[in-house]
Amino acid sequence: MYHGINLDDKLREECGVLGLYTDGNDNTARLLYYGLYALQHRGQESAGIAVNDGIKSYYHKAMGLVPEVFDDEVLEKLKGHMGIAHVRYATSEESYVENAQPFVARYRGGTISVAHNGSLINGKKIRDSLEVEGAIFQTSIDSEVIANLIARYSNEGMNKAIEKTMALIEGAYALTIMTEEKLLGVRDPLGLRPLCLGKMGNNYVLASESCAFDVMGATLVRDIEPGEIVTIDKDGITSTFYTKGDKRASCIFEYIYFSRPDSIIDNVSVYEARKNAGRILAKQYPVEADLVIAVPDSSVPVAIGYAEASGIPYGEGLIKNKYIGRTFIQPKQSMRELAVRLKLSPLSENLEGKRVVMIDDSIVRGTTSRRLVERLKSAGAKEVHVRVSSPPVVCSCYFGIDTPDKNQLIGAMKTIEEIRKTIGADSLGYISTDGLVNSTGLPKENFCLACFNGEYPMAVDEGKENEVLED
Amino acid sequence: MYHGINLDDKLREECGVLGLYTDGNDNTARLLYYGLYALQHRGQESAGIAVNDGIKSYYHKAMGLVPEVFDDEVLEKLKGHMGIAHVRYATSEESYVENAQPFVARYRGGTISVAHNGSLINGKKIRDSLEVEGAIFQTSIDSEVIANLIARYSNEGMNKAIEKTMALIEGAYALTIMTEEKLLGVRDPLGLRPLCLGKMGNNYVLASESCAFDVMGATLVRDIEPGEIVTIDKDGITSTFYTKGDKRASCIFEYIYFSRPDSIIDNVSVYEARKNAGRILAKQYPVEADLVIAVPDSSVPVAIGYAEASGIPYGEGLIKNKYIGRTFIQPKQSMRELAVRLKLSPLSENLEGKRVVMIDDSIVRGTTSRRLVERLKSAGAKEVHVRVSSPPVVCSCYFGIDTPDKNQLIGAMKTIEEIRKTIGADSLGYISTDGLVNSTGLPKENFCLACFNGEYPMAVDEGKENEVLED
Amino acid sequence: MYHGINLDDKLREECGVLGLYTDGNDNTARLLYYGLYALQHRGQESAGIAVNDGIKSYYHKAMGLVPEVFDDEVLEKLKGHMGIAHVRYATSEESYVENAQPFVARYRGGTISVAHNGSLINGKKIRDSLEVEGAIFQTSIDSEVIANLIARYSNEGMNKAIEKTMALIEGAYALTIMTEEKLLGVRDPLGLRPLCLGKMGNNYVLASESCAFDVMGATLVRDIEPGEIVTIDKDGITSTFYTKGDKRASCIFEYIYFSRPDSIIDNVSVYEARKNAGRILAKQYPVEADLVIAVPDSSVPVAIGYAEASGIPYGEGLIKNKYIGRTFIQPKQSMRELAVRLKLSPLSENLEGKRVVMIDDSIVRGTTSRRLVERLKSAGAKEVHVRVSSPPVVCSCYFGIDTPDKNQLIGAMKTIEEIRKTIGADSLGYISTDGLVNSTGLPKENFCLACFNGEYPMAVDEGKENEVLED
Amino acid sequence: MYHGINLDDKLREECGVLGLYTDGNDNTARLLYYGLYALQHRGQESAGIAVNDGIKSYYHKAMGLVPEVFDDEVLEKLKGHMGIAHVRYATSEESYVENAQPFVARYRGGTISVAHNGSLINGKKIRDSLEVEGAIFQTSIDSEVIANLIARYSNEGMNKAIEKTMALIEGAYALTIMTEEKLLGVRDPLGLRPLCLGKMGNNYVLASESCAFDVMGATLVRDIEPGEIVTIDKDGITSTFYTKGDKRASCIFEYIYFSRPDSIIDNVSVYEARKNAGRILAKQYPVEADLVIAVPDSSVPVAIGYAEASGIPYGEGLIKNKYIGRTFIQPKQSMRELAVRLKLSPLSENLEGKRVVMIDDSIVRGTTSRRLVERLKSAGAKEVHVRVSSPPVVCSCYFGIDTPDKNQLIGAMKTIEEIRKTIGADSLGYISTDGLVNSTGLPKENFCLACFNGEYPMAVDEGKENEVLED
Repeated sequence: MYHGINLDDKLREECGVLGLYTDGNDNTARLLYYGLYALQHRGQESAGIAVNDGIKSYYHKAMGLVPEVFDDEVLEKLKGHMGIAHVRYATSEESYVENAQPFVARYRGGTISVAHNGSLINGKKIRDSLEVEGAIFQTSIDSEVIANLIARYSNEGMNKAIEKTMALIEGAYALTIMTEEKLLGVRDPLGLRPLCLGKMGNNYVLASESCAFDVMGATLVRDIEPGEIVTIDKDGITSTFYTKGDKRASCIFEYIYFSRPDSIIDNVSVYEARKNAGRILAKQYPVEADLVIAVPDSSVPVAIGYAEASGIPYGEGLIKNKYIGRTFIQPKQSMRELAVRLKLSPLSENLEGKRVVMIDDSIVRGTTSRRLVERLKSAGAKEVHVRVSSPPVVCSCYFGIDTPDKNQLIGAMKTIEEIRKTIGADSLGYISTDGLVNSTGLPKENFCLACFNGEYPMAVDEGKENEVLED
Repeated sequence: MYHGINLDDKLREECGVLGLYTDGNDNTARLLYYGLYALQHRGQESAGIAVNDGIKSYYHKAMGLVPEVFDDEVLEKLKGHMGIAHVRYATSEESYVENAQPFVARYRGGTISVAHNGSLINGKKIRDSLEVEGAIFQTSIDSEVIANLIARYSNEGMNKAIEKTMALIEGAYALTIMTEEKLLGVRDPLGLRPLCLGKMGNNYVLASESCAFDVMGATLVRDIEPGEIVTIDKDGITSTFYTKGDKRASCIFEYIYFSRPDSIIDNVSVYEARKNAGRILAKQYPVEADLVIAVPDSSVPVAIGYAEASGIPYGEGLIKNKYIGRTFIQPKQSMRELAVRLKLSPLSENLEGKRVVMIDDSIVRGTTSRRLVERLKSAGAKEVHVRVSSPPVVCSCYFGIDTPDKNQLIGAMKTIEEIRKTIGADSLGYISTDGLVNSTGLPKENFCLACFNGEYPMAVDEGKENEVLED
Repeated sequence: MYHGINLDDKLREECGVLGLYTDGNDNTARLLYYGLYALQHRGQESAGIAVNDGIKSYYHKAMGLVPEVFDDEVLEKLKGHMGIAHVRYATSEESYVENAQPFVARYRGGTISVAHNGSLINGKKIRDSLEVEGAIFQTSIDSEVIANLIARYSNEGMNKAIEKTMALIEGAYALTIMTEEKLLGVRDPLGLRPLCLGKMGNNYVLASESCAFDVMGATLVRDIEPGEIVTIDKDGITSTFYTKGDKRASCIFEYIYFSRPDSIIDNVSVYEARKNAGRILAKQYPVEADLVIAVPDSSVPVAIGYAEASGIPYGEGLIKNKYIGRTFIQPKQSMRELAVRLKLSPLSENLEGKRVVMIDDSIVRGTTSRRLVERLKSAGAKEVHVRVSSPPVVCSCYFGIDTPDKNQLIGAMKTIEEIRKTIGADSLGYISTDGLVNSTGLPKENFCLACFNGEYPMAVDEGKENEVLED
Repeated sequence: MYHGINLDDKLREECGVLGLYTDGNDNTARLLYYGLYALQHRGQESAGIAVNDGIKSYYHKAMGLVPEVFDDEVLEKLKGHMGIAHVRYATSEESYVENAQPFVARYRGGTISVAHNGSLINGKKIRDSLEVEGAIFQTSIDSEVIANLIARYSNEGMNKAIEKTMALIEGAYALTIMTEEKLLGVRDPLGLRPLCLGKMGNNYVLASESCAFDVMGATLVRDIEPGEIVTIDKDGITSTFYTKGDKRASCIFEYIYFSRPDSIIDNVSVYEARKNAGRILAKQYPVEADLVIAVPDSSVPVAIGYAEASGIPYGEGLIKNKYIGRTFIQPKQSMRELAVRLKLSPLSENLEGKRVVMIDDSIVRGTTSRRLVERLKSAGAKEVHVRVSSPPVVCSCYFGIDTPDKNQLIGAMKTIEEIRKTIGADSLGYISTDGLVNSTGLPKENFCLACFNGEYPMAVDEGKENEVLED
């Protein structure tokens, strides 16, 4: 995301989705805009809103952050009593405006709009078979595949069409779908990606995360269940299940890093889960130290939990430059080391002579960790003990998360002790998988933990990344 | 075009197309850029180039003039040994970037790119029937319909697919089409819209007008025939006919106004045809006068011809501000009359006390003519005799030209004498339809003259304008 | 001007100025905007408008063309009953937004705004002496020097201050100056640069050229005399002379190329002068030929005059691409020759087998002439006879015109016969200096002809170009 | 700063300055860019860098954030071995690009560049007297006054000129000044605004805050003393004092809010001072509660200090949306209350049923405090006790801080109890002035506390705000 130089070392969520059905007021696009702002952390590459006034669809989508993509003039033109919206992070190969969502098309019944978070593992196969039947594709996104399938089955009614479509597609998906008549929300059979329902007065909202509800003035009703289709129209809300299995495989990274701490995912507070992870880490990897600090912002609750459980005081040790945005000047080689200093500055005054526990939520490549440990020491820290609130990432994700090649995953390539040496820490502790699961209070069977243990919840074609247009 | 205020009174051509097949050098996109620049007069709303390197397709299209849409960086990325390109003028309802061309999509055989000049009269009907079969549409342009049809038939080979597609579509079209293997040019069975073939060394070029060849360093070989498919690939060029009728109905407005004077359309020099029209006008509507002037730029050759035939000297009477571009400040009501003065200024010195023949190529609404006559008189002209090198426009076009509603066509609503009074001219003469036809030297049967006489070359659903997404 | 590649071969005027005093309506900025649009040919690099409501001054200036610099929102904020405006062409060294005009500053009496066309030859010397007294300079333009001088003398009253300032500065200048109380127009003692007065109702306008009056709805009253100060305020208009010599030295290039043909400069129609030049050229350099063509646009009246006097028919031979603007893609070396084709295309149909007289208004470096002759011949012209409506340029200008280094002036480096060979013409004729003077009908003593004969109207420091900040 | 709606309730620092002298490498502009990034919190309206290579000066300045104003291309052109830089926050009246800094001008000795943080109280008076002598002013900033004075005295040498200038000007100033020969840093006689010296290898840096040094790879040497001039040139660094009084009056708001927590101002760690303030607040206003939270970001250390001293656990209660930038859509009236929710979201999970201490660093108008208390309660907080780490702001600042009108200062208009009721808090405690002073460990005599007690360190013309051009 930072042009020219990677300033942090994180896995990337690929999308956030939103849906809103209102009783006719003309604030729909504006409310979606606010909600999208609250989901901005789920994707910073493109943003889009599509609305429908029961007769036609209007939409606007473009590359950029939510406030860059929309202005008053654009929002004013998006008139409709319902709408869906999307923010997207994308791998560089897919980074074209054509791939921005929501996907909007005409089908025999009018217009259909689709917003998708996740990734289909059989998207390419379905594409191929549709092409053999004569279909053409203008984008490389799964939403186009999904819209094509729904359109094909649409003579049987929209809900039936969606059921048939869901029976065909495999992988991870949280969808918001809109036609002239209704707004629908769909979550995949394993609940890999989150989707929840909110209410504002008589109106309903669908969102990837509940943090969107607060800014929209809505309140969380419940999560959409795996395999559930929620349908909202002028007659209210109905729920059906296109499948109902026992298996569940929610992405645990939503708790570790992706979601905002003020979101509640599947009834569990993200903040609380993070704080618990800190408490558990403190038990699994205790250390004698003077100060617990976090790599801001997402590790702060973990650090507070660690401090509480260990009795070591919590404090700030790294100050974040809040003006570092996405556009970033390409540093010349000679300046590169300075450039990476811009984002976080060590707080010498607080570190001098201290034994410091530095809490991070994940280590992907390890480059940032190495730099931070080094800078903490230069700033006077006597010892730096690194504690990580997720286990080592060792496998790629096929369900909507952008993971680097395996040989770039430090957790896959090195032992813990080797990693410790590489990053220069005095000690290093990763939370155990069980510890992480326990931090959520949910049973282990609920989660997909494949990035830590390679046990994918469905058969995937390992080694093959998400398919893109260029393939 | 001009935001806020209409500064001239012309019919609008809706598009220009281009195609280029080279022997592997990497100047393809740049050559298309130059050629597109020469076709800019055919469409100023959006521009696009798609190239293909035999393996993949790359494209770029956006709203704006050719030099606004492309820069060095963009052209550099468009690598391929062949390409097609497009400029577009559009009615306001269709003015979305989604509708910019070339249209590029994946189909079972790879990628297909289509650039279209013209308008299908059964586009909506085909759309509907494809939708019933499950197809979805993301744009409101005919190119998407055409690409869908070709994709459906593509299992029988590209040329067969194109033949089948052409058998289905009705209306006006000059097409350039590109796949991984070949570049194709197609002209509709009546030759409504122009398309010609050029050669540069061993390479072939297709263009709406031959004026593109000069800037590309190519030379005109011949026009594509009505009903012809030209196929260019590594083995050279081949020609087939998907239909071969006797009827022909080329748009005569290409000679009057749309094409550049340095183009040769169907073996006739546009410049020469215009000059002839002036000579004929001089015979049909002689007048005693001191000076023949043109409404710049397209009427200059007509005025020169009129002067030559009448013996009245040619001179400049209206000076054009060459910096008036597309962006134009919305004048306040009180300033409106001044704003329209910006584009053309009368040359008092040359007009004072003179009887002036003002040559215009067409009168559509009549508003500009009225203003010009008035300003010539204010500038000292004793008499203003208006001569028009096309007959009164009385009917709408369904073949790719943007005509205003019939009740805005002054030729349809008023007699010649009423028009003369409205525009304040001392006399008014329109060239006769036969006179216009004669100016080209081609037989009358060759032309569509429907905008003058309502005789459409095929059945059209009168009263219905081009279909758009919002319908 | 054209980034990357020089598409024509002309001397460049450096500025256009404007002034307007109205009786309190709020259209001042908009009227100046229209007037500036009409003066755009005098400078395309930056534009600016300053207004004054009697209490404060508001201004806006930026790099770019008039319609790029101003929009509705900006014009709306420029409220005042009087204003001055400026367009600028600049040599690359001075191309900074700081150097855009009008120059606006506070002085003891309020605010002073200055717009300047021309060039001071003792600007650097005055700057130096002011700096010794402690003054600082933020730009490299003469307007800042002039404003400083006026401010220093302003305790004696504005008109006295201007008189004293004019007594000090040497060189070429047409100035519009504005304070809270009045609008002033000043022309240098030799009348090197033009300035004229117009009237619109009760309001007065000052402009470099009368072509601005037409679009503003004003009429030309008279030229400002050399050495005259015109003062316009609530009590009307008054005229004083700060000097009154017999000598006069107006720039003859205003008639040849700089001014618009619809302007009247010092009572002479620019169009008529150009046409006369054509007639005189026909007598000085007759030739047997079939067609007279112009290099568009400024040579058209010359060609019409040549045709009239010679009896050879006038026609179009070079078609100009009207969409070629300022931004122009940097062609790769291999594409360079094609790039230069974009601006003008030969009209083969009209040229084939003909002996052609090509009229140009000037030859500076000769590069464009060579290319045009070559292209006319490629397009079929049997002979190309070049006739030029100005004598060879052999010396640099120190009075506001951007001339290339002497060794780039083909007229200074080669004989006429050598030039003819270089450009590939069958014959070449330059109008004589006397012929050119005669084309205007004014006495030779009225003009500065230094670029043709090196006789500067005042002592200049030859070899030194205009001073710039970097010197 | 947020267009359309004020999202927080803070006093605004008006500027940050920077200076760098290097031994000839060409990274000067890039290093200044990084340093400026670290000072971005001191001004987000405009940014500028001026460099000097010993012969000429190059500069670039524009409206916008540091990464918006500069890109690689711009930085590449700014070549020089020394430079100064500036970020600016400005009141709306002064918000013109002309007022961006550094101020650069030519004077008799070459070029002089000035960057200023602070505000002169006799700037208008000096301007007036310079104008009487004939000077003109193009901006409304104090830097232009200062540069004029220095230029006037420059015949006596640069350092003498600066001494004379400093003897004339009154008010607050931290200056970096650059000529072709040297870089100078000057701090006002009372040390109202901060300025410090850093070292990187053999090179010297001057900065408003030491946090700039870390990202530049420099280390803090010491603060510039009140009344000191530091001169850096090829011979190294020298220090002189143009005045040496006993009085000192540093702005205490640097510790409360303006400076970054990782800066050391006058030998005191900003972070430590804030944490101390929390500890002192806990003693001055103890309360029985379950959770201490901060209004992020600047109050976090205060909250940690409060938690530590009170024994009440620290936690997060308000989550900041890190994507809220400066551009913000103007909400419609009906949406206004939602819009303000975007920036901070309460963390219900953590607040539910709890008695919460909310720590803020200041209350200016009180509007934000009211909204936050209300939202904390809606999110479930049983009680909300507000503690503020600065005393009530009751008087305007004349030394470079943008304070609202007195009748908008809630501290000036209401009693503590009235404020408590207005913001809806269960209790409200402001740190005492002595408590605040003690948090820094410095003597009370060191500080300007005028905004709390009206005791200005020099006579000011109360009721008159900073002078601007429009006055």
